[in-house]
Amino acid sequence: MDKPDALDSFLNDFAGITEPKILVHGGGKIASNLGSQLGINSSYIHGRRITDSATLDLVTMVYGGLVNKQLVARLQNRGCNALGLTGADGNVIKATRRPVKDIDYGFVGDITPDDVNVVLLHSLLKQQGIVPVFASLTHADGSMLNTNADTIASVLAIALSKDFDVRLIFCFDKKGVLKDINREDSVIRHLPRKLYDELLPGKVFADGMLPKLDNAFAAIDAGVREVVIGDAGNLLNNTAEQTEGTLITQ
Amino acid sequence: MDKPDALDSFLNDFAGITEPKILVHGGGKIASNLGSQLGINSSYIHGRRITDSATLDLVTMVYGGLVNKQLVARLQNRGCNALGLTGADGNVIKATRRPVKDIDYGFVGDITPDDVNVVLLHSLLKQQGIVPVFASLTHADGSMLNTNADTIASVLAIALSKDFDVRLIFCFDKKGVLKDINREDSVIRHLPRKLYDELLPGKVFADGMLPKLDNAFAAIDAGVREVVIGDAGNLLNNTAEQTEGTLITQ
Repeated sequence: MDKPDALDSFLNDFAGITEPKILVHGGGKIASNLGSQLGINSSYIHGRRITDSATLDLVTMVYGGLVNKQLVARLQNRGCNALGLTGADGNVIKATRRPVKDIDYGFVGDITPDDVNVVLLHSLLKQQGIVPVFASLTHADGSMLNTNADTIASVLAIALSKDFDVRLIFCFDKKGVLKDINREDSVIRHLPRKLYDELLPGKVFADGMLPKLDNAFAAIDAGVREVVIGDAGNLLNNTAEQTEGTLITQ
Repeated sequence: MDKPDALDSFLNDFAGITEPKILVHGGGKIASNLGSQLGINSSYIHGRRITDSATLDLVTMVYGGLVNKQLVARLQNRGCNALGLTGADGNVIKATRRPVKDIDYGFVGDITPDDVNVVLLHSLLKQQGIVPVFASLTHADGSMLNTNADTIASVLAIALSKDFDVRLIFCFDKKGVLKDINREDSVIRHLPRKLYDELLPGKVFADGMLPKLDNAFAAIDAGVREVVIGDAGNLLNNTAEQTEGTLITQ
């Protein structure tokens, strides 16, 4: 989202996918920048943003409004019939507000594949040729809730895997899962569960990568065909033989 | 939007309507307040906001994000299956960016009833029992555009009047069209075209009311059954005999 050229190229690639498709996005850096201007400085615990009331308004504006609608307008301009959604819209993902235990995460929604309104998604994807573009927001009890974008992508992939052959792609700013965080050329091309379990105790994976990998293997275990993790710049051009990123399988 | 109690009551009334329904909203005051905090001070010409690039981002955030998603979440909590839309979503209202003549209004979209994707709206309203909640934004050529909420309501009403018996309700902060702006009890109960034409030269109507009345009569002329203008607090409880607000007919 932060690099105009890369985003342009990504949207071209995404618009070019001919199969039914869904885009899930966040917008954390844009929200943080706007938050600074507004004096809303979110706190973080274990890398997770604490969503107080002001932060909830901030992410609702930025994820659900600014970023979502810009993406939708730009995809429409590429002939891709995008339609922006949060979990609240059409009740497409109903969350449970995270209970307070040791930490109060604030307005954060936890979700499972059972919370996904697959009937609505089927109608949009299959009958109307619409491309859902999800902002990383859900809802419960009349309030919007903040939910991690990777989690939403993973949960949607699992919920749709009963009726679709799903490929889940996580895009981030590295070329894939790296064996050595300092070497971009150390991408692990194929990471089946067995190799993951072998490498995990050696603290090979960066802290930020672990939730992504948890989501990835949860998706694979629940019926998603394959998960790819890598750089948004060229992932979408992958063929079945997969030329970029890290392929995660059972 | 600015009065929590009134909004609560309005949402209850709106959720209670059993016929297919659409809500169209703006959010101008909230956008102006946030704009002030961010140093974005929009200029106005003839009561219309000039939408420069910073203002477009502001209204996209506030109308399309904050206000739209709060309304959707609160309606969902009332058992009303709301789904937020801008004109870009599903290409539901494709605008033309207003050409620059004497004044450059900036990122503003002009629309006609032919620009409405009635196929998508029919599917949402009739087949899926969904309640579209429109933010006053449209799109063209890959950009979001700012469009007056009353105009969007009017254009949607006209586009749907071929297949639905449409009642168009404009809610604002007065009890109806007033014969004397200083007297809330001077509501004109019934304003057919003939009476409007008689009263117009006497400068009876407030300047802010004239665009609403233009939109209202344009809608009536184009097939909308009736238009009601009045206070959001009690308009939706009207029966066929109409007890509140100003009824506008041919």
